[in-house]
Amino acid sequence: MPIKSRIRTIPNYPRHGIMFRDITTLLKDPCGLYTTIQEIAGRYDSVTIDKVAGIESRGFIIGAPVAYQLGKGFVPIRKQNKLPAETLGKDYQLEYGSDRIEIHRDAIQPGDQILLIDDLIATGGTAEAAAGLIEDMGGEIVECCFVIDLPDVGGRARLEKLGHRVFALCEFDGE
Amino acid sequence: MPIKSRIRTIPNYPRHGIMFRDITTLLKDPCGLYTTIQEIAGRYDSVTIDKVAGIESRGFIIGAPVAYQLGKGFVPIRKQNKLPAETLGKDYQLEYGSDRIEIHRDAIQPGDQILLIDDLIATGGTAEAAAGLIEDMGGEIVECCFVIDLPDVGGRARLEKLGHRVFALCEFDGE
Repeated sequence: MPIKSRIRTIPNYPRHGIMFRDITTLLKDPCGLYTTIQEIAGRYDSVTIDKVAGIESRGFIIGAPVAYQLGKGFVPIRKQNKLPAETLGKDYQLEYGSDRIEIHRDAIQPGDQILLIDDLIATGGTAEAAAGLIEDMGGEIVECCFVIDLPDVGGRARLEKLGHRVFALCEFDGE
Repeated sequence: MPIKSRIRTIPNYPRHGIMFRDITTLLKDPCGLYTTIQEIAGRYDSVTIDKVAGIESRGFIIGAPVAYQLGKGFVPIRKQNKLPAETLGKDYQLEYGSDRIEIHRDAIQPGDQILLIDDLIATGGTAEAAAGLIEDMGGEIVECCFVIDLPDVGGRARLEKLGHRVFALCEFDGE
């Protein structure tokens, strides 16, 4: 089943010159959602994973069903001030300005094997911060997993340079 | 498996006097996540459902695995200006001020049978707006489904008065 063909491209969103890759057309298709989760979860069938961490908020839509399918727990990594209990946070640079993500301090135990999931990797800034947070808590990143990689933007290379394994179901170049 | 016992209560969050019901402790527990999704999806096994709609963002964590387990598509209902394609939106009242949710115009077809999911129902304002959006597009709400109901706050009664069926896995009163 061609996952890539079910992803819609919206030109000039959120601003001029950006080709936005929209997974909502993939998600609303029963076969699209099912195959996406099966393909990701199937990759980790015989891999030791303790928890799946998903990055707010499209990473929740992919990460939670993968955790469910694998029979593991799910940990949300959220924007600032969204988690109710004690958190650990990390700032990261955006093209303009900076942002911050947070995780509950009790979400990860030292030695936990964590599968990190988001819908898309572009520059890799958010994923790098998320992986760093998990490692700061003693967790180990099994792999950083995405539905979409934009290799032209360099996120995969950035994560790999930090020693992370990276997997994506499909790639889009600047087409 | 007692789902309710795995939900953590955080007093005085996000402000004094609120007992916040935190599902992250349920989600990070493999058995907690699995049982939650199985119990919800099992309820709709022999019910006609075309799509599962989840409300941003904790509704994504519950709604997406339920859609996956049922073999249906998933539709995100998001905060304002988060969806990239053409949207339909609805404003709703908060205790202080108002908020707005949006859905893609191509997310629902007339006659679609929609299961609406969020993590928690309190006053029911967001769920009412979400159900209204779906009905404005010609969709039919099969049921509004939550992990947690706070019956003291009146959301269930409000949705039922509008003719919606409401289901929640567990209830918390003001304890």
